[in-house]
Amino acid sequence: MTDFATWTRAVQTRTEAALAHALPSAELAPERLHEAMRYVSLGGGKRVRPMLALAAAEAVGLSAGCDHGLPPLSPALSLEGASGTRSAFGALSLTEAAACAVELIHVYSLTHDDLPCMDDDDLRRGKPTCHVQYDEATALLVGDALQSQAFEILAEAGATAEMVALLARAAGSRGMCGGQAVDLASTGKHLDLAELEFMHIHKTGALIRAAVLLGGLSGGQLDDVQRAALEHYAKCVGLAFQVMDDVLDAEADTATLGKTAGKDAAQGKATYLTLMDVREARAYARELIDDALASIAPFGELGRRLAEIARFIVERQY
Amino acid sequence: MTDFATWTRAVQTRTEAALAHALPSAELAPERLHEAMRYVSLGGGKRVRPMLALAAAEAVGLSAGCDHGLPPLSPALSLEGASGTRSAFGALSLTEAAACAVELIHVYSLTHDDLPCMDDDDLRRGKPTCHVQYDEATALLVGDALQSQAFEILAEAGATAEMVALLARAAGSRGMCGGQAVDLASTGKHLDLAELEFMHIHKTGALIRAAVLLGGLSGGQLDDVQRAALEHYAKCVGLAFQVMDDVLDAEADTATLGKTAGKDAAQGKATYLTLMDVREARAYARELIDDALASIAPFGELGRRLAEIARFIVERQY
Repeated sequence: MTDFATWTRAVQTRTEAALAHALPSAELAPERLHEAMRYVSLGGGKRVRPMLALAAAEAVGLSAGCDHGLPPLSPALSLEGASGTRSAFGALSLTEAAACAVELIHVYSLTHDDLPCMDDDDLRRGKPTCHVQYDEATALLVGDALQSQAFEILAEAGATAEMVALLARAAGSRGMCGGQAVDLASTGKHLDLAELEFMHIHKTGALIRAAVLLGGLSGGQLDDVQRAALEHYAKCVGLAFQVMDDVLDAEADTATLGKTAGKDAAQGKATYLTLMDVREARAYARELIDDALASIAPFGELGRRLAEIARFIVERQY
Repeated sequence: MTDFATWTRAVQTRTEAALAHALPSAELAPERLHEAMRYVSLGGGKRVRPMLALAAAEAVGLSAGCDHGLPPLSPALSLEGASGTRSAFGALSLTEAAACAVELIHVYSLTHDDLPCMDDDDLRRGKPTCHVQYDEATALLVGDALQSQAFEILAEAGATAEMVALLARAAGSRGMCGGQAVDLASTGKHLDLAELEFMHIHKTGALIRAAVLLGGLSGGQLDDVQRAALEHYAKCVGLAFQVMDDVLDAEADTATLGKTAGKDAAQGKATYLTLMDVREARAYARELIDDALASIAPFGELGRRLAEIARFIVERQY
């Protein structure tokens, strides 16, 4: 088994290639919209959600094929073939499709989140945000079209109705969109820990949960032990991820982060650091990760990548 | 069989009840987002897309149950039960779910279309638009969440992967969103008839096609004759609908239309009336409808509602 750093690079390469293939070519009309969809989706991102989907698939016994630093996907999906035809679309495995779908929901939410009427941010993944590079109307349509694209990719790979419904609930008003609404409403207000976690469980937790469960479900039905293990793991990892996001937003500089640092505090947003200091926040993240690691014991050695991702989340610098 | 006016009222009542049931209650957190989702989705709209879905289902032999002026849906879905629990969600038939899903995609697109960075409109269905009634960020999230909700409803009713993929393609960058991008790019430019129809086939035609095909598919697989008939019908009806929209936008007053009249011309948008006069446009719409009527001959008497909708489209005043 390759080490974690090699594995993450393989997942990133594979995700990039799969997205480059699945997104419409910038040579297809409407060209500017397609170019902008590729601009926000390709060439960056930690790809944490695809990692989680692939690792969860491995935990339930699927080989996601990222253990040998392999070139991405099947030969039909090599980068050379990525720009043109869409007929080989179905060549994405259901696991790969799940990984791409959750990543595109994430990318669309960032694109809309950066708009002037939301966070009004200029920089994302080290590049100008979509409405700065293109214009607001294009950024709006890019987000809208990427959400459709996520469901298209998942369905075209043969997802079950259960998987589609799971992603839709995670993205919608009782998931990610709902979390963003709570976030907006709470700007400038004091939230206690329970309120803050309610927001995060929706805003980022719901999609992380979807990544983990869709990865698991891409191998077929989950038994009760597997489902409970993945659910609890996802909940702990999702919260730890957000705690560390708040720590990094406060500590890191903009260049390392690839997005505007310190903006949460500047915007009067509730974060973990309004409730605890950095040392306490790091300790809380470690506790959550210990809980996540304990929950995946039933997978034994197959859960190794899930464990590595959990540890990476508390150790990451960006 | 009831007359067409009675049938349309039954479909409208049923759609209203199904949406009122399927959308999260405004008493569930985040309350303001849920209230705004209901504000834009309920209490208005011609419900042409649900009509098309239900009529297509009838054409392939499904009884959609709208022929007796019945109260909406099953007893479990009466209006009294609509606001609270979501457990009876699955009580929507697949046909009803398809009708609701396409309508919610339509409603989300109107909500985003009305935003200041797009058409910047204040009035929709006789009410203040979402960003006027609430705020821009809420209107953005309402549209985003309604798109997710559409896929959730479709999947929870047990849609096949083919049906989900069909709706996703219709909504995305090579469907409705793509048409809106072309529309934006062409404002102030002269389009010839081919370019104008390319835009409309995407902007409104794709979703009308999805309504018709999803209605048909809600009864199971379509044979080649049925599919070709529905495809051609949808294409003709979609274009005729747009021709008449342009005619009505130019002729009607704002009160009758329920949205700002004359705005296309004011915004320098290409319309059919930049290429032909009103008399020619009406004649063209009638030609398209004759073509639509011919295409559904294979359904015989079962295609009656589809035929009535086609005729309604050229005769409507709003």
